[in-house]
Amino acid sequence: MERQSVGQVTPEVFVFGSREKPLELESGYTLGPVEIAYETYGQPNEDRSNAILICHALSGDHHAAGVHSPHDRYTGWWDGMIGPGKAFDTERFWVICSNIIGGCRGSTGPGSINPETGAPYGLDFPVVTIGDMVAAQKRLIDHLGITRLYGVAGGSMGGFQVLEWSLRYPEMVRSAICIASAARLSTQAIAFNAVGRSAITRDPEWQGGKYNDKGPEKGLAIARMVGHITYLSELLLDEKFGRRLQSANRLSYNFSTEFAIESYLDHQGSAFTKRFDANSYLYITKAMDYFDIARTYGPLKDAFADARARYLFVSYSTDWLFPTDQSREIVRALLSRGKDVSFIDIESPHGHDAFLLEEEKLTRIVSGFLTGVSEEVPP
Amino acid sequence: MERQSVGQVTPEVFVFGSREKPLELESGYTLGPVEIAYETYGQPNEDRSNAILICHALSGDHHAAGVHSPHDRYTGWWDGMIGPGKAFDTERFWVICSNIIGGCRGSTGPGSINPETGAPYGLDFPVVTIGDMVAAQKRLIDHLGITRLYGVAGGSMGGFQVLEWSLRYPEMVRSAICIASAARLSTQAIAFNAVGRSAITRDPEWQGGKYNDKGPEKGLAIARMVGHITYLSELLLDEKFGRRLQSANRLSYNFSTEFAIESYLDHQGSAFTKRFDANSYLYITKAMDYFDIARTYGPLKDAFADARARYLFVSYSTDWLFPTDQSREIVRALLSRGKDVSFIDIESPHGHDAFLLEEEKLTRIVSGFLTGVSEEVPP
Repeated sequence: MERQSVGQVTPEVFVFGSREKPLELESGYTLGPVEIAYETYGQPNEDRSNAILICHALSGDHHAAGVHSPHDRYTGWWDGMIGPGKAFDTERFWVICSNIIGGCRGSTGPGSINPETGAPYGLDFPVVTIGDMVAAQKRLIDHLGITRLYGVAGGSMGGFQVLEWSLRYPEMVRSAICIASAARLSTQAIAFNAVGRSAITRDPEWQGGKYNDKGPEKGLAIARMVGHITYLSELLLDEKFGRRLQSANRLSYNFSTEFAIESYLDHQGSAFTKRFDANSYLYITKAMDYFDIARTYGPLKDAFADARARYLFVSYSTDWLFPTDQSREIVRALLSRGKDVSFIDIESPHGHDAFLLEEEKLTRIVSGFLTGVSEEVPP
Repeated sequence: MERQSVGQVTPEVFVFGSREKPLELESGYTLGPVEIAYETYGQPNEDRSNAILICHALSGDHHAAGVHSPHDRYTGWWDGMIGPGKAFDTERFWVICSNIIGGCRGSTGPGSINPETGAPYGLDFPVVTIGDMVAAQKRLIDHLGITRLYGVAGGSMGGFQVLEWSLRYPEMVRSAICIASAARLSTQAIAFNAVGRSAITRDPEWQGGKYNDKGPEKGLAIARMVGHITYLSELLLDEKFGRRLQSANRLSYNFSTEFAIESYLDHQGSAFTKRFDANSYLYITKAMDYFDIARTYGPLKDAFADARARYLFVSYSTDWLFPTDQSREIVRALLSRGKDVSFIDIESPHGHDAFLLEEEKLTRIVSGFLTGVSEEVPP
């Protein structure tokens, strides 16, 4: 089948809860009302049993596929994976993607108006966890009339949400696709997140989170630069940039941006500040740090005892932020419980970013896996 | 022999050059007068043939061993390696360590007074290279009446200086000890340096390098935090910190420093600003980025064609900032030219910092190597 784009899509907003009946959070705090920005691609079948929820990563959002206008230069972040004839085939599946709570792209987050004050929440926004994000998604899925998801899929922090879905609502998840992810962040990954948060909160423009307009752009840019290094493999950096100079083939002997890698990072840092909110960056990285299946559900072997999904794990050989061993650890725990699990470590030079870049290989694997799910005897 | 401290030492300062007769730099710019802060441990023998020059790394200085006063709580940065009965045995060797130019611990750097303006150089200080640092050290070594060094030794950026010494002044270097180093930085290491510099120069307190007193402490702290992550292995981070919380065993659900690793990095970042100058950090990391033996001396195999030193290379198994392969690459080039080279990759959990921490293993290796050098037939 020819692979096509889903074409033009329009984001929607689902609102639930109120100050009186808020969403209860893992912290004990509450949040309400809650807005969830989301998009859908494809159509529901009669009993709405063909829905696949896509979960986005740290800097992603609900715009996973298609364009927002005919002249839109950019497609959604996983456009290569979602569409007619693609891995998440919109001829077969009803694909849904929502912005996480705590985010800054339409769902309720620290930049939203706090109903108690009429001003943006800022740091008065409660700390949210991956579990809270999933609980909010659950409300959206209920609202859409879905009783059981054909699948939940995501990479990186999206994979955290996939795992959480499969443990929190085991009866609702037929299949779970967890890509370049883990049961918890490594200490090193927490360390990089901590540096990113420090760069933001030490920026005088942050003002305790009560900034207007511009905000701590410099700090946020630094945080993103650090992040970008961790998303790329050393191999790729060497091949793509090496010691290549940005303009001349002559050292400048000054502090201009000189090596191509410097220019790349500088651009990535600055561009990010145009589309992302610094406080959301704090909240989302904190949620990532907190995620720890063993802490919430007990040792991995026990944590997955009641899981009912068919699992697919994909890792990438040069991903050092979410190394292959972290996927393997979960796979072993599932296998020790006799669960249905597939696992593949893809040889790739692209590091952690491979899940966004290497869509050909991933398409073959995901398509095959989803076909297998359809053949399963209904429970 | 019992290992002892060298005891109390007093730094000295050597001044050379002038505005009229400055040091000519690789950039084409000049610097003069030049002050070099240095310390010596042990005594010269009659013909001063027992001198070993120690080269420090990014954040080190000339205070490599002993204490500055009887009540000094801290010893020099390589005190475990330098002293009576130690690897650099001050009963046998006359050990010298000097602060690099561009530094901030006594040698001329961007914080020094610019004789042309009477104010600190700031960004008017010329960009210096590893070659320039070594050229300045050469003037000190000449001044001390040394015609041939028994050895030059250093780790990390200190290893860059070791290699440069052996290529720039091959007739003056009997042995070269290059630890946890490389012929050039990896692209990833340049990327981390670039982020560190960005954190400094984007700090409003930096003021184009013309700060007084406090300076860009926040930016410098962020730079140091990033650096620290790269100095430690993932294994060590997991073992030393893991997901341990700093105080309670309960998540705080706020943005306080929560995980032990966060607190560690925060402390390291803040402590560094008390002892290091932000502009020096810019200049020294730039010198590291620029260092590239192939660029200066041609392909590695050719670069070392005229080298005359006996070489010892030491790498560490979990060092991902200066990976073992980078040492191996130089070793292969030397062997292909029939040079005298020893190489050992030490199994260690300590990452790049191992060269400062694992002194027992390093002592055995360096002692044996230096004994071998003494047995060599004089050229």
